[in-house]
Amino acid sequence: MNYKEESIKLHRKMQGKIEMISRVKIRNKDDLSIVYSPGVAEPSLEIFKDNKLSYLYTRKHNTVAVITDGSAVLGLGNIGAQASMPVMEGKAVLFKLLGDVDAIPLCLDTQDTNEIIKTITILSKSFGGINLEDISAPRCFEIENALKKSCDIPIFHDDQHGTAIVVGAALLNALKLAEKKITHVKIVINGAGSAGTAIANFLISIGAQHIIVCDKFGILSKSDPTLSKAHRILSEKTNQEQLTGKLGVAMKDADVFIGVSVAGCVSKDMISSMNHKSIVFAMANPIPEILPEDAYDAGAYIVGTGSSKYSNQINNVLAFPGIFRGALDAHAKEITYDMMKAASLAIANSIQQKDLRTDYIIPDPLDKQVHQSIAKAVHDSALITKVEKTH
Amino acid sequence: MNYKEESIKLHRKMQGKIEMISRVKIRNKDDLSIVYSPGVAEPSLEIFKDNKLSYLYTRKHNTVAVITDGSAVLGLGNIGAQASMPVMEGKAVLFKLLGDVDAIPLCLDTQDTNEIIKTITILSKSFGGINLEDISAPRCFEIENALKKSCDIPIFHDDQHGTAIVVGAALLNALKLAEKKITHVKIVINGAGSAGTAIANFLISIGAQHIIVCDKFGILSKSDPTLSKAHRILSEKTNQEQLTGKLGVAMKDADVFIGVSVAGCVSKDMISSMNHKSIVFAMANPIPEILPEDAYDAGAYIVGTGSSKYSNQINNVLAFPGIFRGALDAHAKEITYDMMKAASLAIANSIQQKDLRTDYIIPDPLDKQVHQSIAKAVHDSALITKVEKTH
Repeated sequence: MNYKEESIKLHRKMQGKIEMISRVKIRNKDDLSIVYSPGVAEPSLEIFKDNKLSYLYTRKHNTVAVITDGSAVLGLGNIGAQASMPVMEGKAVLFKLLGDVDAIPLCLDTQDTNEIIKTITILSKSFGGINLEDISAPRCFEIENALKKSCDIPIFHDDQHGTAIVVGAALLNALKLAEKKITHVKIVINGAGSAGTAIANFLISIGAQHIIVCDKFGILSKSDPTLSKAHRILSEKTNQEQLTGKLGVAMKDADVFIGVSVAGCVSKDMISSMNHKSIVFAMANPIPEILPEDAYDAGAYIVGTGSSKYSNQINNVLAFPGIFRGALDAHAKEITYDMMKAASLAIANSIQQKDLRTDYIIPDPLDKQVHQSIAKAVHDSALITKVEKTH
Repeated sequence: MNYKEESIKLHRKMQGKIEMISRVKIRNKDDLSIVYSPGVAEPSLEIFKDNKLSYLYTRKHNTVAVITDGSAVLGLGNIGAQASMPVMEGKAVLFKLLGDVDAIPLCLDTQDTNEIIKTITILSKSFGGINLEDISAPRCFEIENALKKSCDIPIFHDDQHGTAIVVGAALLNALKLAEKKITHVKIVINGAGSAGTAIANFLISIGAQHIIVCDKFGILSKSDPTLSKAHRILSEKTNQEQLTGKLGVAMKDADVFIGVSVAGCVSKDMISSMNHKSIVFAMANPIPEILPEDAYDAGAYIVGTGSSKYSNQINNVLAFPGIFRGALDAHAKEITYDMMKAASLAIANSIQQKDLRTDYIIPDPLDKQVHQSIAKAVHDSALITKVEKTH
């Protein structure tokens, strides 16, 4: 199937993939007086007295804003606010289908970090959560951190954490098959932008102890005085051996390769130099760092990519619908690492150990049952966090 | 019926009156690849090349943001962002029901004029139009004017222009029955906030020549050095005779009284002092400036109010759905006075001359046919404006 052609055809036909509908009927003036003026004054006054009632009287409890500045859209790069809308509408479709979440796409016509923070803060009362999307690094870190302080609803940058959660789930299942422990394996992450950074932090949070991160210049090392602030922070948590050099140096004897970088940057020799039963997640889109057939040929044990053309598609569609469903149901104020871990485990455990195969380590992203399990796990974790904070 | 009680009941049951749905189906990975990644890159790239294509490939062509800062909500006053959401959701329900417009309610957590202007400008690329709502005067004038310059989509403050358009329509029909001409009648407007100011400006645009505006201190006169900037501008277009004094002075011999002020501020004596066949629109909510029975008793010829309890309800639900429907269909960049006049005439003319009665000067706001007529009139007017600008 020619996705490009079919996609243009569908988009021309539908002229928008989402639609706002009414949940109430207005048949006569009495209905009008209840749904709108003058009756609507009552729920408004109730919320004025107690803001928490907005979760009861409005759609806040089910509504998430999907917000981008269009600076790092898919593999397209900086295409700006207007052009990013089809992607955000697509995300909203998936939110509804897989999480029953009402998602409102908002494309911001600014790429100024402070303006983005201010705008989203001002908007935040209208939503039960904020899904940040396709905002370039390192701005995305500053924006997310600032919003976590200024807003009292969950803030979640999907390109970072959604990817990390799904990679974590795939890795946990791959390690089961390889009979290796996350605490012992040597993991190389190629790509030190939003996804790479979040994957490193998340894997550390679930026990990884030997991570090496590379960017296009090679291994991040704290001895390198030219690193950016974000990369220096990352280098201090990783690369214990203080290796220096290119990606090839890092990959020697590695158990796991995780690529969030560019097509074709990994050679068969690099794969051959890895430890036995090597795990290769080559997630560059649309063309992976190394083609699965080449990776297997060079001795890889398990290969995953970002593409639906191969088995083991590591797709962050698996994470966000259930995460927000769970967070909304718990009226969560934030999405904690514990909630993310719960999501990752729920994804991994949705495939029973006996069903795992080297070409089946991650569930189908369209399996609604999986999303329901994630939502429940995230919801329960959110409630535990709430209880802990109360005591 | 107890509207307050019924409204609380409905809002508790529905937990939100609107909902975002998907217009596309995703049944398998192929669908996913067309609706979302990687296929969605194509329409995004097309829009990147030509921003106008966002009207074709996204829901922009049918989507309006309903934006408030919660500073002047219904008769409730300044209740803030969170508490204003039930009203905005109600508005979104009416947008859908009567105009088939997808309306996104956004309640801004700021009342700083510059922050509001900046926020809405940054958001504007996501929408086909902006309906400003319940923003207090005089800030609403500055905000609307600034946005008209900074955005390339229609900006419409409904409390101003929606009200003015419907009052204009009601007045045109009332004058037909009274056999008076708008160019000749003396019109008193009580209330010099957003609605009063917009009504004065709009009636002038459709031919009114003798308007006197009062606020709570009395007649606005340009000889008064204490007037605010907004009131001075208004006083220069009105009160040719340079009257001074209270409302009672203004109403003597007036043909038309239009109240957008407070309950009970008009006495029967004031009504009796008006010209013969007097027209009284007492629109304070929920209790009018004078009760219709008292106004009729004092000699009024036609009485309208803002309430559904009486005949001749002057309800701005009549205006906004058709206005935005027409503006969206025309891909209009603004809502001009000509488009507003077209809307007002369409409302007035939806009742045939032979069917007009003193208790039936304005159509039922739930009559969809009326909204379709308004949409068509506004659409046609928008296209004429476009053609004129091109030549």
